[in-house]
Amino acid sequence: MLTQKELISLKKGDVIKHFLLIRKCDVRTAKSNKPYLSLELADSSLTIQSNVWENFDSFFEKVKNGDVVFVTGFMEEYMGSPQLRITNIRFAEPSDKVDPSDFLEKSKRDLNQMKDEFFNRMESISNIKLKLLLKLIFDEDNFKKFSTAPAGKSWHHSYIHGLLEHTLEIIKICDLMCDIHPELNRDLLICGAMLHDFGKTEELKFDSSFEYTDKGKLIGHIVISAMKINEEAKKIPDFPEDLKECLIHLILSHQGKLEYASPVVPKTMEAIALYHADELSAKINAYKRAIQAGTLNENKWTKFISLASTDLYNHGISSEVEVEDEINKTLFD
Amino acid sequence: MLTQKELISLKKGDVIKHFLLIRKCDVRTAKSNKPYLSLELADSSLTIQSNVWENFDSFFEKVKNGDVVFVTGFMEEYMGSPQLRITNIRFAEPSDKVDPSDFLEKSKRDLNQMKDEFFNRMESISNIKLKLLLKLIFDEDNFKKFSTAPAGKSWHHSYIHGLLEHTLEIIKICDLMCDIHPELNRDLLICGAMLHDFGKTEELKFDSSFEYTDKGKLIGHIVISAMKINEEAKKIPDFPEDLKECLIHLILSHQGKLEYASPVVPKTMEAIALYHADELSAKINAYKRAIQAGTLNENKWTKFISLASTDLYNHGISSEVEVEDEINKTLFD
Amino acid sequence: MLTQKELISLKKGDVIKHFLLIRKCDVRTAKSNKPYLSLELADSSLTIQSNVWENFDSFFEKVKNGDVVFVTGFMEEYMGSPQLRITNIRFAEPSDKVDPSDFLEKSKRDLNQMKDEFFNRMESISNIKLKLLLKLIFDEDNFKKFSTAPAGKSWHHSYIHGLLEHTLEIIKICDLMCDIHPELNRDLLICGAMLHDFGKTEELKFDSSFEYTDKGKLIGHIVISAMKINEEAKKIPDFPEDLKECLIHLILSHQGKLEYASPVVPKTMEAIALYHADELSAKINAYKRAIQAGTLNENKWTKFISLASTDLYNHGISSEVEVEDEINKTLFD
Amino acid sequence: MLTQKELISLKKGDVIKHFLLIRKCDVRTAKSNKPYLSLELADSSLTIQSNVWENFDSFFEKVKNGDVVFVTGFMEEYMGSPQLRITNIRFAEPSDKVDPSDFLEKSKRDLNQMKDEFFNRMESISNIKLKLLLKLIFDEDNFKKFSTAPAGKSWHHSYIHGLLEHTLEIIKICDLMCDIHPELNRDLLICGAMLHDFGKTEELKFDSSFEYTDKGKLIGHIVISAMKINEEAKKIPDFPEDLKECLIHLILSHQGKLEYASPVVPKTMEAIALYHADELSAKINAYKRAIQAGTLNENKWTKFISLASTDLYNHGISSEVEVEDEINKTLFD
Amino acid sequence: MLTQKELISLKKGDVIKHFLLIRKCDVRTAKSNKPYLSLELADSSLTIQSNVWENFDSFFEKVKNGDVVFVTGFMEEYMGSPQLRITNIRFAEPSDKVDPSDFLEKSKRDLNQMKDEFFNRMESISNIKLKLLLKLIFDEDNFKKFSTAPAGKSWHHSYIHGLLEHTLEIIKICDLMCDIHPELNRDLLICGAMLHDFGKTEELKFDSSFEYTDKGKLIGHIVISAMKINEEAKKIPDFPEDLKECLIHLILSHQGKLEYASPVVPKTMEAIALYHADELSAKINAYKRAIQAGTLNENKWTKFISLASTDLYNHGISSEVEVEDEINKTLFD
Amino acid sequence: MLTQKELISLKKGDVIKHFLLIRKCDVRTAKSNKPYLSLELADSSLTIQSNVWENFDSFFEKVKNGDVVFVTGFMEEYMGSPQLRITNIRFAEPSDKVDPSDFLEKSKRDLNQMKDEFFNRMESISNIKLKLLLKLIFDEDNFKKFSTAPAGKSWHHSYIHGLLEHTLEIIKICDLMCDIHPELNRDLLICGAMLHDFGKTEELKFDSSFEYTDKGKLIGHIVISAMKINEEAKKIPDFPEDLKECLIHLILSHQGKLEYASPVVPKTMEAIALYHADELSAKINAYKRAIQAGTLNENKWTKFISLASTDLYNHGISSEVEVEDEINKTLFD
Repeated sequence: MLTQKELISLKKGDVIKHFLLIRKCDVRTAKSNKPYLSLELADSSLTIQSNVWENFDSFFEKVKNGDVVFVTGFMEEYMGSPQLRITNIRFAEPSDKVDPSDFLEKSKRDLNQMKDEFFNRMESISNIKLKLLLKLIFDEDNFKKFSTAPAGKSWHHSYIHGLLEHTLEIIKICDLMCDIHPELNRDLLICGAMLHDFGKTEELKFDSSFEYTDKGKLIGHIVISAMKINEEAKKIPDFPEDLKECLIHLILSHQGKLEYASPVVPKTMEAIALYHADELSAKINAYKRAIQAGTLNENKWTKFISLASTDLYNHGISSEVEVEDEINKTLFD
Repeated sequence: MLTQKELISLKKGDVIKHFLLIRKCDVRTAKSNKPYLSLELADSSLTIQSNVWENFDSFFEKVKNGDVVFVTGFMEEYMGSPQLRITNIRFAEPSDKVDPSDFLEKSKRDLNQMKDEFFNRMESISNIKLKLLLKLIFDEDNFKKFSTAPAGKSWHHSYIHGLLEHTLEIIKICDLMCDIHPELNRDLLICGAMLHDFGKTEELKFDSSFEYTDKGKLIGHIVISAMKINEEAKKIPDFPEDLKECLIHLILSHQGKLEYASPVVPKTMEAIALYHADELSAKINAYKRAIQAGTLNENKWTKFISLASTDLYNHGISSEVEVEDEINKTLFD
Repeated sequence: MLTQKELISLKKGDVIKHFLLIRKCDVRTAKSNKPYLSLELADSSLTIQSNVWENFDSFFEKVKNGDVVFVTGFMEEYMGSPQLRITNIRFAEPSDKVDPSDFLEKSKRDLNQMKDEFFNRMESISNIKLKLLLKLIFDEDNFKKFSTAPAGKSWHHSYIHGLLEHTLEIIKICDLMCDIHPELNRDLLICGAMLHDFGKTEELKFDSSFEYTDKGKLIGHIVISAMKINEEAKKIPDFPEDLKECLIHLILSHQGKLEYASPVVPKTMEAIALYHADELSAKINAYKRAIQAGTLNENKWTKFISLASTDLYNHGISSEVEVEDEINKTLFD
Repeated sequence: MLTQKELISLKKGDVIKHFLLIRKCDVRTAKSNKPYLSLELADSSLTIQSNVWENFDSFFEKVKNGDVVFVTGFMEEYMGSPQLRITNIRFAEPSDKVDPSDFLEKSKRDLNQMKDEFFNRMESISNIKLKLLLKLIFDEDNFKKFSTAPAGKSWHHSYIHGLLEHTLEIIKICDLMCDIHPELNRDLLICGAMLHDFGKTEELKFDSSFEYTDKGKLIGHIVISAMKINEEAKKIPDFPEDLKECLIHLILSHQGKLEYASPVVPKTMEAIALYHADELSAKINAYKRAIQAGTLNENKWTKFISLASTDLYNHGISSEVEVEDEINKTLFD
Repeated sequence: MLTQKELISLKKGDVIKHFLLIRKCDVRTAKSNKPYLSLELADSSLTIQSNVWENFDSFFEKVKNGDVVFVTGFMEEYMGSPQLRITNIRFAEPSDKVDPSDFLEKSKRDLNQMKDEFFNRMESISNIKLKLLLKLIFDEDNFKKFSTAPAGKSWHHSYIHGLLEHTLEIIKICDLMCDIHPELNRDLLICGAMLHDFGKTEELKFDSSFEYTDKGKLIGHIVISAMKINEEAKKIPDFPEDLKECLIHLILSHQGKLEYASPVVPKTMEAIALYHADELSAKINAYKRAIQAGTLNENKWTKFISLASTDLYNHGISSEVEVEDEINKTLFD
Repeated sequence: MLTQKELISLKKGDVIKHFLLIRKCDVRTAKSNKPYLSLELADSSLTIQSNVWENFDSFFEKVKNGDVVFVTGFMEEYMGSPQLRITNIRFAEPSDKVDPSDFLEKSKRDLNQMKDEFFNRMESISNIKLKLLLKLIFDEDNFKKFSTAPAGKSWHHSYIHGLLEHTLEIIKICDLMCDIHPELNRDLLICGAMLHDFGKTEELKFDSSFEYTDKGKLIGHIVISAMKINEEAKKIPDFPEDLKECLIHLILSHQGKLEYASPVVPKTMEAIALYHADELSAKINAYKRAIQAGTLNENKWTKFISLASTDLYNHGISSEVEVEDEINKTLFD
């Protein structure tokens, strides 16, 4: 585990002796025709720029995105933004025991608590066929990948453990809907919620950056999930055919519309519930992150976000409890 | 209050002495060129067909949709469907103390319980400006209309008290989302949820049938709600301008997309949450009702539902608790 | 095998002693209030109307769409359309050795010739992994279903053996494209062509009429095909992972656009070729059938065809060879 | 009022002693790593670039977009474009009596003439309720804002007084349509035309540049207008409810389609007339400006204009009167 | 010329001795199995229903839509609608000197006045090449067809002389726009307005009913117009190539968008003006007609109009001049 | 004919004495404020970058895109890309006998072979009217342009002779479809295939680069083709009107949908065949070129291609014949 200070906590002049992840690496050329190495370096708290002007040739031949390096130097500021002046740089070695994933953003929620929530909910599934299917699919290896993966490359829950966090949110929403609508088959819906994005463990690679795999682009997480359920259900004796079809239907239809890449639209109550629970979880997370990322500099409006078809607004109206407290103070003090 | 038996509970040959609502009323002509009166009559449980062949002229001159009549006759069956043979029919009179609304479908939830839920939630709003605004808008008269209205003409929660039921569902979903996301301004979001469809009390008439009013068609419930909030907020001293704008934005954007008649798209975290909470509540209710209505006759598939762009499926897979019970029996007995 | 004359060859007054298929069966009521049985009866050449006015109650209780009946009666004409006057009707019995499928429209092409074409083409696949996969999938049972199935419910190649006919057309088009473009991987493309609609054998039922199965509606032929390939490829040792992914991609993307229910769009040269070869084969067949069906009565224009977004035109301009012959005669005789 | 020469009339070498508006202001860094101040300065005739290389720190700390500065220097040319060499720059002071709005582009039409046209037309409204409503809304303050505002941020009539110019064009078109169609209610239509974009006075800020306000983004000019009419009509005794609804309907529907942000589509003759009159006025102005801006350099084609989905063509075919004159000269001289 | 009374002015019991146009003619069968002839008969004021029960066989063999017949009988009423009881019917003969077109709805405007307007405007075209082109195209034969044709089959200006009426409206709108924008080439724009729908003279047949011709469906009025201009301009020496291209561009782009069947979108100022002038003229006429047709029976709302995507509203708010007069009376008397 | 070596075959240090085409030419300014000339130079095999730092003023005043120059210098490499160091540059002169078109990319197919294929197919048209029409249109001048033109500016077959290559592919596909469907009128379809893109000879200029002409933008190749056929068919006595309309319909509808700029959609069997044959030929070529261009550097995925709405994949799975050979070797050696 890394013990170094987070980049975001450092100030101008602070000394750097840090392992950092290479996010981008190019040779560019200054107008003086002098070539230099342009680096984007990151820990999980910040991505920072640095230029190297001398003796970078042999380094550049070996480096690739996702590498971890050990950097010596100090923090500078350039035109208002933090920058890194590098005095020495070397590749991390196995003995350093650092992992590229240590440098990726992670869910703010506690992983162990999320795991407990997930397995407790799985245990309370009544239908033994479905519970067995879940246990086959979420075996140790698969669950490790599932609990590590982001839910997406860049839009919502796009950070380590994001897929698990997102799945738990959907489960909670679905359980609430089952409380309201006893007509919903709770086991089927919760099982669908748990498995709906399972295919993202193969659609994405997320060891040192978030990228689509070839399989992810050619087949997609929806059909990967469906094929997985089909395979594993075959191993369970007497798995009811209609139950399997309804479960696969939940997976296939969970993006709600053909143009969102679902090959069938929702046709059951559980399917329409899962689609909208997914939307609710995904969109609030995405908008929250876009607002947080976009309004760092006291701007209330983000730039135009094409996935939202608008710019977004951080109204900054303070949480009303304090307001009332303040008022009460005024009234009673 | 009506004490007569529900139509749905009657059988062929049963005697009818019922107040019923006129849903449709036409004179048609048989191929024999003989004109007859074709009626659709309803209580809140069923709509039923009846033909009158003689002496209907003076009745036809006075009757209009939404009238209540007192019918004597008996139940018949014709080609598999129930039909009503009328021996006498007269208009209801004030002394009958019947109200057309008694013949409209109603929410299955208990009205008083829903009212309590609503007012309790309103009381727990912390922001005193917003709480005051809610109290001004939900005065006795308005709340009576609000708690009576359906949430729509025919798609979701399209029954008496449906608007209140729908609003309460959204409040629950929004409260859950606030538990997950402390960044949401809970008071603002819940206040928006309570008011988002308030304009439907003027967009629809729902005394004897569900129809759009002229105002509803020309202005629509979204802008009616916004104008109402604008009016009432002006009566509250020092109502913060930014709070009012964010609240009106919630109302205006709650249908999520321009093509769904929202004049602005959601631009705040609360707005995106309200839109998807509304969708979740509306769509599950709509699909449930479509499935229930469409699969009465043992068909698992409904007819094509254009608002869903598909036919819907009633899988009929039994709730899994019993399945497990059965299995447990097998295991332990 | 049926030896009776085709309905289409009969004339007014001809005696009927035919096995026919029940396509639709309703009780309706005349304006005189007299109920009657309205039937649509068909052999593979024609669908014809008939009404039964007496003693149909016990028959109606047992009959369902897709039944075969033996009908005695004679041909009539009513307002310009052929009609059937039934004097006697009974259900077919096992001893009659008739099969509902004998009454369904069939491909005009010779089945054995089509089978030969298909297996010859399969034999000439060079890649032994792909050839083995095809043999596993097109085993005796599956090929029987595959060679019987229509390619659709009503639009293109919607007749018995239509799926095989359609597949062979696509294979020819794809082979031509491979001749033009050596960059195409011929084995992969032809294998994709052969398998692309395999899932229709489970998506549709086609024993006595063409209907979607529950599985067909919930999962769809595209994902059914993909899951089948995934299953069978696992049985082949060392089946290359990239080859499997590219093949499944061909299946998934063959409808070309997300809104046409493909969960991924074509991303390889073979995928774009297969999509457009499929379109070419399907659309010409569909337009030909719509024109033939729609312009029986000397009208040059069909009714509006919603899938084509237009009415279609049968120009009737004679094949030009004869025209030239005629001219040549004029010139030289 | 400014008496300085317009920038557009100056030549290389001319001395500058001008008040100018800061449109953009950034510190950038040259490849030599030397920081410099990059300025965009404008009067109402031209926007021009200038770089400052020394002693700009204290200036940069105070400057913001929309400020007016007094610049001493002279005109240069750099790579074919005019540029400004600054020898001295200071902020304008109150005693300078300059206003940022003096530096914004203005309508080519005479303001007083436009005001007269507007008020004369208002006076000729026959319906006294509508005339009174107009007078309440267009009070001195509001009319000042209304007659100053642009009709948009960048597309059509996007210059000072543009909203008034645009409104007058629509009034003329609507009056012509009333001449053709006596069925139109002229007072209602003209009143709708006058008010349709009134909300733009609050949707936009236009003192020193054209930007959307928070209220503009959250609520939009359509609903701002509707709320204003609703408020003011309440002050007029016996304002007819149906007239108010039809007038608000005109405002709400004037963008014609839901996807253009109208919450209702046009449902009355006046509404469809206003929508298309608005389109006609807006689009010709927008295309004219795009062509004028895009074809300065003898190019006949503009760049691709995304709002028009095409590039635009300046055919340059001379006005035909002269052509004929020329011909006549040839004929008669 | 017909001197008979208009159908719309007749009352129940009035005697009929009228030439009328056959709009539809079918044999139907009553529930008694008795066949009867169902006719739709029309003069230019009304379309009326009539049934013939005896001896219609030989008549039915010869009759076709668009025939004129001479009918003796009298007016009846049936369930609130006027109906015709026929005692004798015969085909019109040449000696009757009646023309099917006398029975088609016509423009309310005076034809000669419209012709004068058209030719006067043509005379004032300054560009002699364009004026010559117009004279070549609007020769006597073509102008006769042009001034007779409707502007469409059923939507706007869909009556005899409608194309001329529509064209004149567009000319007026375009002249107004040229007054506002001197940048528009007035001759080019007016010439384009005159010719834009010329192809409708060949796209439609309108002798006895309004139908598309084969050429109209296969090629369409836009390209027919373009080909005509291309042909005729070739006959004019030195017709400027760029002028011809800009004129044809006006024709091709006048429906404004590709999806409205224009093969190019408007790219010149004149083209965008013509498109929106056409829209303005067409839509107001269409909405007016739909409202007039749909609100005959005191309903304020029409049925849903799919081309408008809404039902339409006849607000019935009286023209305001009288209102003010009344008020003035109150004030001054 | 050029005898110089192709740029693509040169290496670092090789001497250049080449005629090259100017593709782009700008003066830019280095950060040192030193202006320099930035050139893109090309032969038909490669486009290469070069900067000139001194004495370029008089050259820059005369140069324009599409000029041919004679360059002396040598090949360099800069940051991994080839670059050209120019020691001398002069404009080509007539005596050099070089043509800009020699520097444009060309079809890989042999031109004479393509011409033979085209004329042989034309000769085998049976219908003498159509054959005559083809001969009139493809006269020596027109065929020269037709056989030189690219089929597009940048998407498919966008190289010299590409239009002929594309047309021949479509002819082959159409002939195959005629083999399968005898209902197709082969002469009509093949004639339509030959002429469908003829208008591209006027829509595009392709002497030194590929650009749209004014006529191409204002009218488009579809209507240019239709007007040409209309003109030429008028010269043929007794050219059947219905044949002409069907042929023009083929041209007009060949882009298949209104939104793809066809003014009518396909309404005949031949039209639907031509549309999909065109799609098949165009899309495979476009995807092949995009993949080849995009995956030069060992990347398997291209960048996002907006016309395909995806990035494309070069799977690199080897043609299977060799694989089998290899296996056979393993088996038999």
